[in-house]
Amino acid sequence: MRVLGVDPGLTRCGVGVVEGTAGRPLHMVGVGVVRTPAEAPVAERLVLIERGIEQWLDEHRPEYVAVERVFSQHNVRTVMGTAQASAVAMLCAARRGLPVALHTPSEVKAAVTGSGRAGKDQVGAMVTRLLRLDAPPKPADAADALALAICHIWRSPAVNRLQQLAASVQLPKGTR
Amino acid sequence: MRVLGVDPGLTRCGVGVVEGTAGRPLHMVGVGVVRTPAEAPVAERLVLIERGIEQWLDEHRPEYVAVERVFSQHNVRTVMGTAQASAVAMLCAARRGLPVALHTPSEVKAAVTGSGRAGKDQVGAMVTRLLRLDAPPKPADAADALALAICHIWRSPAVNRLQQLAASVQLPKGTR
Repeated sequence: MRVLGVDPGLTRCGVGVVEGTAGRPLHMVGVGVVRTPAEAPVAERLVLIERGIEQWLDEHRPEYVAVERVFSQHNVRTVMGTAQASAVAMLCAARRGLPVALHTPSEVKAAVTGSGRAGKDQVGAMVTRLLRLDAPPKPADAADALALAICHIWRSPAVNRLQQLAASVQLPKGTR
Repeated sequence: MRVLGVDPGLTRCGVGVVEGTAGRPLHMVGVGVVRTPAEAPVAERLVLIERGIEQWLDEHRPEYVAVERVFSQHNVRTVMGTAQASAVAMLCAARRGLPVALHTPSEVKAAVTGSGRAGKDQVGAMVTRLLRLDAPPKPADAADALALAICHIWRSPAVNRLQQLAASVQLPKGTR
């Protein structure tokens, strides 16, 4: 499976494409950052993010898009921009009929480092090792986007098995 | 000037189109709500909002779009959805080259009722009076969207005068 991971942000939107299946070595297809100028109006920044994400979708044709789930409890000053950028990423994917998955930062950290409270450096180091890169991708947003894609590939078998199980069990109406 | 006001929300996105100029009677062109099912995934709800806003832009061809400015301090549970819906509205407008204005809830209330702390009923009553409607538009999101459009029309002369003044004054480079 080929997954585009998106670490949303108005100033820097990390994007990374990873290919592979759980239990096999993974392969990095591409990594980068969609940037928008801080001095531009928000509406125009969102148009630039849309254009950037569309380019990544066109060029790398992922089958899934994994976006970081934004929490309002976190940094109050940046959370609005993050929510808006994530909305654009989700919109671009869903408009093409691509399945969109949301993973929390701690799910992503736990997936690649074994600890949901790992630091940026640890995530970067593990992404580098897992994708057999020469150096950690910079900036951290780019590494985080790759970690999101890896997390999605590794979590998918479990999610799929649960969905198959749910589909195979006949539950009384209204209980699912 | 013709303005589309958008009161953003994932479940109900109020939309209202008002035509007129400051100091003259205003005219309601249309009012409604773009709804999305609460049980649908967020990404698909954003696609439905995009489709709804696009229809309103296509049908009513506004020259300006006024969107409620979302604050993260407010209701923490709903603020993420509101931010995401507002991002889609801003994106749709900016993509067409339409100017997007953000007005705070208290600016809107102050514009139509004279008080930044007016209640929903008071805003609905003033919108009804100012647009010479038979009854307050329902739900409140629809009335709020019209209030946003009215606020934008009334605030624009001041904004325009400031912009004209700024344009007419030759400032040393880098000071503006």
